[in-house]
Amino acid sequence: MPYLPARVKYDIITVMIYLDHAAATPVIPQALEAMRPFWSDQFFNPSSPYLPAKRVRETYEDYKNRLAHLIGAKGNDLIITSGATEANNLAFTATIAGCTSCPLESTKILVLATEHDSVFAAAEAAKNRLESTNRATEVETVRVDQYGRIDLTDFRNKLDKNVIFVSVALVNGELGTIQPLSEIAEIIKVERLRRLENGETLPLVLHSDASQALNLLSISISRLGVDLLTLNSAKVGGPKGVGALYVGHGIKLQPLTYGGGQERGLRAGTENVAGLTGFTIAAEELQKHLNANRKKYAEFTQALRTELLKSPVKPLFLGVKNREDEKTGAPKLPKPSDHQLANFCPVSFPGIDAERLIYLLEDPAIFANDVSAEPVYVSTGAACAASKGEKSKTLQAIGLSDTEIAGSLRISFGSTNTLEGIKEAGQLIVQAVTHEWERIQNV
Amino acid sequence: MPYLPARVKYDIITVMIYLDHAAATPVIPQALEAMRPFWSDQFFNPSSPYLPAKRVRETYEDYKNRLAHLIGAKGNDLIITSGATEANNLAFTATIAGCTSCPLESTKILVLATEHDSVFAAAEAAKNRLESTNRATEVETVRVDQYGRIDLTDFRNKLDKNVIFVSVALVNGELGTIQPLSEIAEIIKVERLRRLENGETLPLVLHSDASQALNLLSISISRLGVDLLTLNSAKVGGPKGVGALYVGHGIKLQPLTYGGGQERGLRAGTENVAGLTGFTIAAEELQKHLNANRKKYAEFTQALRTELLKSPVKPLFLGVKNREDEKTGAPKLPKPSDHQLANFCPVSFPGIDAERLIYLLEDPAIFANDVSAEPVYVSTGAACAASKGEKSKTLQAIGLSDTEIAGSLRISFGSTNTLEGIKEAGQLIVQAVTHEWERIQNV
Repeated sequence: MPYLPARVKYDIITVMIYLDHAAATPVIPQALEAMRPFWSDQFFNPSSPYLPAKRVRETYEDYKNRLAHLIGAKGNDLIITSGATEANNLAFTATIAGCTSCPLESTKILVLATEHDSVFAAAEAAKNRLESTNRATEVETVRVDQYGRIDLTDFRNKLDKNVIFVSVALVNGELGTIQPLSEIAEIIKVERLRRLENGETLPLVLHSDASQALNLLSISISRLGVDLLTLNSAKVGGPKGVGALYVGHGIKLQPLTYGGGQERGLRAGTENVAGLTGFTIAAEELQKHLNANRKKYAEFTQALRTELLKSPVKPLFLGVKNREDEKTGAPKLPKPSDHQLANFCPVSFPGIDAERLIYLLEDPAIFANDVSAEPVYVSTGAACAASKGEKSKTLQAIGLSDTEIAGSLRISFGSTNTLEGIKEAGQLIVQAVTHEWERIQNV
Repeated sequence: MPYLPARVKYDIITVMIYLDHAAATPVIPQALEAMRPFWSDQFFNPSSPYLPAKRVRETYEDYKNRLAHLIGAKGNDLIITSGATEANNLAFTATIAGCTSCPLESTKILVLATEHDSVFAAAEAAKNRLESTNRATEVETVRVDQYGRIDLTDFRNKLDKNVIFVSVALVNGELGTIQPLSEIAEIIKVERLRRLENGETLPLVLHSDASQALNLLSISISRLGVDLLTLNSAKVGGPKGVGALYVGHGIKLQPLTYGGGQERGLRAGTENVAGLTGFTIAAEELQKHLNANRKKYAEFTQALRTELLKSPVKPLFLGVKNREDEKTGAPKLPKPSDHQLANFCPVSFPGIDAERLIYLLEDPAIFANDVSAEPVYVSTGAACAASKGEKSKTLQAIGLSDTEIAGSLRISFGSTNTLEGIKEAGQLIVQAVTHEWERIQNV
């Protein structure tokens, strides 16, 4: 018997402080408005033969061009997918498709230690596929430093003649760490040249998951030097269920789905016209305000850190250099890092259980001085990993202790936040930490 | 430089007669209304750890249960995908996943001759995957009769001990032919029993693409006896970019995308909550009005045929028995067929070029008696195949000549149609045929 699902009613601005924009973002009104026609009067199948359907096809290609334009590419270079996970998985098929005439030796896939689950899982799937064709394959992780930046020496050492595929996210989804993609691309270029001179034919493909990056970075494919780039609608104010993979010239992929020949035969299925439209409009809107937003979020970050420094448990700010007063040893406000995306402010309260903090912050009445305080929503690692109770690979990779990992909150800002709300959230987090700290003292 | 896409403005009801609901349907208002919260106040990632996100997760599972309920299944039996193409492709992974410990002999995949491109393509992909693991594989097509119904004798003959997978759509997307799925399932049951008794361990899986069926059929998984069933949102008044695969107990699949472990690990990626919601609401709405709609469309079909019989070129109604007056030889109205979904009325005008008809009907001013006539949108075969200029496999399979295929229109009714509009469309089609017929006479 059909029944009505539980309805949750929140007014985003006034009754909560949402600090998990790295997990999901509301669809911006302009995007929703632009999507609307494709559900009603322009609902046609873009492959149908009559004029209004052909116009939908044109519009779809227009939006694709516009989205591609944002990263300095052409519409034809993009494969529209159902999200970043599919795009990441499609990217890794380059290991199979690119290797039909490769020397039948063992191959190696390099993945940064802090990549998203879907990258690791796609790497394993590629390994299994290659091994089922009798090609021994290894997935090796590349180390990061304590701020989450790639260890370029380790990368250089591991980039040997067997490496077929390298995957490094432009921005890490937990720490906000920005990777030096163009430096990585330069190192890859040198190895490619070496192979060419030695007559080695193994391809070497560079992929980057830029799911979080479009929010605050100006992305240029040619400047980054990547062959494959994953984009994600749901993280930038577009609808869920849409993503894109940029595919550089000459890069061969193997479709995950076969059928009606859409997306240059690489991704079959009727095009999600509304989805692409919302994605494009949202991404364009964000790209218009990059500088203003970077400045705004940098201010949020420092305001939040200023509050968090008042905690009885000394906060460990992740992804940046922590500082303390030389004389008193008291913690000081860290300097903003150029290598951390401005809307990320991850922090650990070692000794405190972050999961309890999340629970407390949902209902500040439990601990707050102000009984009318709004709930604050933060998370631990990536949503999908956190929901499985897994310990964050990223936080392990930057060398945090188990206690530091257990006390870590992922905090990420977005369009729903205000400076006032951030300060209030900071106070509430400190009150929650204090509540927990006192509880532990009394046990 | 961003630019505004061409805007097409149509009011569906009043300024056109759309007769291609098998290609795409507008999203019904109730579905759109139900989707809205998941773009704004309930935008959370269902995997996030705080209460409102958990409520979104519950709602998502609720909608999945409701959708599953429509086919007599449980929510856990459904894998939500980005559409029917992905669901069809996922279904065919049963050939690989189900066979890890199979005898290493050659295997066979049986596909009905009239299946959608994505089924044939997924079958070929499965064949290639199996062959890459040194298992010779054959994709064999099962014949249909002149109405598009499966030839059960041919099916029985081809269902030998090597068959691992059978795919037969519940309703054909061009002719509307309804297949006797439960009879097919019975035959498969007998073969499974034979294998069991002989100690043969090769699995035998029955898949059905029910993309078109949810519109007008009451579907019961247990009555149909299928192991895997594809559902499609975009054909039933839900949004594009969503589909589902029913997976029977004990059926093993291999994911197409790996990552955050969503959909029981079989389909990674953040859940498209709005998409599933719209799909479920639209499907429920249709299922409420099955009888009324069947009756309505049956009336439309006979009204349209009545008009088309006035054509100077004798129409060939597809999927049904054509009749003529015993004395005069004049064509007569066919009797409605129980084996054709009521909203399909495919027809051929042999000798006339259907593509020219489509073009003419877009702009009736070219030929119509009434200069204010509305455009009529019809198609040839499936949209994706038609757009590639391919000759319909389905029409070849039912034995049409090239001339008959070239003169074929796919006509399918839906929520945007009225009896008055259907009659008007019939008159316009006859006028267009007449216009073409006269042009050919004068050449």
